[in-house]
Amino acid sequence: MERYCSDWTGAWTGKPLAVVRPANSDEVAAIVKLCNSDRVSVVPQSGMTGLVGGGVPSKDGKELVLSLERLNKVRSIDPHTGVVVSESGVVLEHLDSKLREHGFCAPLDLGSKGSCQIGGNVATNAGGLRFRRFGSLHGTVLGVEVVTGTGEKLDMLTELRKDNTGYSLKDLFIGSEGTLGVITAVSIAAPRLAPIRQAALLACGTWGSVLRVLRLADERLQGILSAIEFFDAASMEVLLGTDRPYVVHRMRQEDEIEPATYDADSAVSTSLAPGSPRVAGVRDPLDERFPFYVLVETRGVRADHDAEVLEAFLSSSLAGGYAETGVFAASESEANELFAIREGITSALSARGPVVKFDLSFGRTKDMYDLVDESRDWLRPMTRSDGVLACGYGHLGDGNLHLNVSIPGNVSNPAGADAVREAAKTVVYDRAQAWTVARGGSISAEHGLGTMKNQLLPAIKPPAVLAAMRSIKQVFDPNNIMNPGRGVLHPCEAFDTDRTKSF
Amino acid sequence: MERYCSDWTGAWTGKPLAVVRPANSDEVAAIVKLCNSDRVSVVPQSGMTGLVGGGVPSKDGKELVLSLERLNKVRSIDPHTGVVVSESGVVLEHLDSKLREHGFCAPLDLGSKGSCQIGGNVATNAGGLRFRRFGSLHGTVLGVEVVTGTGEKLDMLTELRKDNTGYSLKDLFIGSEGTLGVITAVSIAAPRLAPIRQAALLACGTWGSVLRVLRLADERLQGILSAIEFFDAASMEVLLGTDRPYVVHRMRQEDEIEPATYDADSAVSTSLAPGSPRVAGVRDPLDERFPFYVLVETRGVRADHDAEVLEAFLSSSLAGGYAETGVFAASESEANELFAIREGITSALSARGPVVKFDLSFGRTKDMYDLVDESRDWLRPMTRSDGVLACGYGHLGDGNLHLNVSIPGNVSNPAGADAVREAAKTVVYDRAQAWTVARGGSISAEHGLGTMKNQLLPAIKPPAVLAAMRSIKQVFDPNNIMNPGRGVLHPCEAFDTDRTKSF
Repeated sequence: MERYCSDWTGAWTGKPLAVVRPANSDEVAAIVKLCNSDRVSVVPQSGMTGLVGGGVPSKDGKELVLSLERLNKVRSIDPHTGVVVSESGVVLEHLDSKLREHGFCAPLDLGSKGSCQIGGNVATNAGGLRFRRFGSLHGTVLGVEVVTGTGEKLDMLTELRKDNTGYSLKDLFIGSEGTLGVITAVSIAAPRLAPIRQAALLACGTWGSVLRVLRLADERLQGILSAIEFFDAASMEVLLGTDRPYVVHRMRQEDEIEPATYDADSAVSTSLAPGSPRVAGVRDPLDERFPFYVLVETRGVRADHDAEVLEAFLSSSLAGGYAETGVFAASESEANELFAIREGITSALSARGPVVKFDLSFGRTKDMYDLVDESRDWLRPMTRSDGVLACGYGHLGDGNLHLNVSIPGNVSNPAGADAVREAAKTVVYDRAQAWTVARGGSISAEHGLGTMKNQLLPAIKPPAVLAAMRSIKQVFDPNNIMNPGRGVLHPCEAFDTDRTKSF
Repeated sequence: MERYCSDWTGAWTGKPLAVVRPANSDEVAAIVKLCNSDRVSVVPQSGMTGLVGGGVPSKDGKELVLSLERLNKVRSIDPHTGVVVSESGVVLEHLDSKLREHGFCAPLDLGSKGSCQIGGNVATNAGGLRFRRFGSLHGTVLGVEVVTGTGEKLDMLTELRKDNTGYSLKDLFIGSEGTLGVITAVSIAAPRLAPIRQAALLACGTWGSVLRVLRLADERLQGILSAIEFFDAASMEVLLGTDRPYVVHRMRQEDEIEPATYDADSAVSTSLAPGSPRVAGVRDPLDERFPFYVLVETRGVRADHDAEVLEAFLSSSLAGGYAETGVFAASESEANELFAIREGITSALSARGPVVKFDLSFGRTKDMYDLVDESRDWLRPMTRSDGVLACGYGHLGDGNLHLNVSIPGNVSNPAGADAVREAAKTVVYDRAQAWTVARGGSISAEHGLGTMKNQLLPAIKPPAVLAAMRSIKQVFDPNNIMNPGRGVLHPCEAFDTDRTKSF
């Protein structure tokens, strides 16, 4: 049963009462009905690629793990409209490739696409790389089939793009993290796949330049922009080492740009290897390193036009002094190479050692990177002594920052890397969350609450809003058997207010 | 108080206990709190452009009308991200023009934009002309501020594009038709306004050709397609008279198209004037009439490219034999002229006399128009005797059909137009709804349930789904004071099952 006991991070582990692997939604309903009458807790599991402990059973051996992996059929794809009905256990990459056969694609794309399952994606309201283009799952998911906490099956699997008949219950289940019931199937309006893909990597000297590149991309690449991501020098160096000369900013005569905020001393740990990529097959396409990188992807239908538009955008970025330099992927495989950098950062961080991870979003992207700089200040003593490193990367177009604090596995401190991780967490964790909340940001942009962040709910939601959420929990799961202790708690459970005192 | 007593259609009228016009959300909360303790029903009102009687007080003079018209401030627009926070009473057209000052636009566009208010749009989950481009309000509305049925204010007015902290309560209020509480403000991710607008009108001989044009537009105009609408010959003739020669289908040598299904005899009433437009300023840009018209709009950022792409699309439509002919709007004012045709149909129908209106959506657009043909069969005797006419138009790209059955105001039948309307309704109403439901369609695609269709809920929702909706109603409005009798009913209210027996 080992693979049902922990998730991708390994940070949470548990011991299930048993693992059940139903083959269809009726079996799911029968199982949940039994559990409800016997008051047995049910932990629904998909691909276990989550980062917040939402699908890991508790350690007491009293929770039933309900794996959706056998509900793995794509029930139908309408070749005219792209509306797909899929069972929950279908792996995202498989769903995407089935849709591609008909000229459509999945409306979301995640680094974990080879393992994550569509039911889990919907249950956690996953974001990812295509969010900028296709928007939230609340817009693209048309319907769901669920089994509620009483074992009742609700068929809300509409294939209609528009249907205003009663409350939009499907949206309650999107992002509910298994606490209201089990999603057994979903219907999705898949977007048409634009066949021409291009990518470009731009290097920027300052965060202000990054935002100007974003603005320019928004305006000039309108209609073909499909992703706009960023990562900083520290992320790049964790991934690819420190063998390139570092360029903060190339001065030009017409420059009126603000000075660079990057502090190489505090950001880059001496424990980084000079030139050994930590993830196979990834290389730096530039000869020098820069404070920030912006990765742009376009998808369109006319190769000549798209190339012209992307080139014009790159020229303007350079001419305006927003980008220091850049590369343009001239083929699908080159585009994949550029994306391998962005997608490799998470793996490289894991390979380096323990990580304190954040999933934050901001309305004002202007302030967003300040938090990474602040974290470096907070961590400065540990940076020097233990090689602790703060990296910033994420989904630029959505204001979604993944601050990651990395601890080298081979740390010299006698207590070892895990002790340093705990110390780093003490220094940075609550402070960074509070910093975010104080600026109207979210402490869970796309990963969910799970068991990692749900105790912060009383600190981030007005009491009346939280009370309403808990009443909703009671409607669908009166006996609190569905993923108890994760996400929104049942009214019978108290929040641990000690956890929220620093807010 | 007259203007608070009926909506745009005039089909529903009532008598309020009183009309209150609060100036802010705190006043709304105070009013609802009082009403809740005294058990007084509250009917929230916005622009009163609805079509289903959702905002009209009952006739017994016991309901308080709560108008949102004084909550009319756009609180903020972020010039970088386009996120707007607006009070509910802001007129859609005003909101759109405020956004345009910053290079953004409202994510929805309706014929009633000059009167409807954004709070009502969100409360009814309005669709409209930009749905194809920007998707559902569940995707574009980021947050809401509401006052629930107990007078509690819930501040969920986030400006974040991504925020996965708890259940998505805002989505319950989107489309709740005032039955869970009063929406006092909304936050919306406004899309960037693409400045280059083009439009084209294509004439088609068959429904099959209409669908081929849709498919071609989806593929070739990807990235710039912003609306794709259709209307039939009967709609065109109600609007512009019958003075043009009627062309079912121009045969070409390479033709392998299916035969036209249009039956001019049953569709076009002899009561139509030959050439007098019923709506000022609208003219037919073509010299002949055709069974179907498709109206396409593009919005992009590069005039030369967009013109080239639209011209290539038009050429392919003609060369493929899907379109019989077409016109291309070469300027903004010409594009407005083409859209005036589509937007004029509703007014022209109203000007002709009483109308039985439908708001249906279908997953399989292939079958959609069959219902208009079926309706003509059902109505055939009345077509001959009383000039009853079935028109079909709507949002092609969303599978959204507005079947409209029109009765001439000057009907010769001694009982008069209203009696004919009742007779037509008897013939067509339940049958068309049942026809739709039998094909998995929706009887309320974008207008909502109101008092017109909510009694059909037991016929169209599985009992467990309907029960869950009613439990949600109870959570937010325990005493059933919010718009009672409309939309989803409170558990204390019974559905009139006589209304659903024909399903």
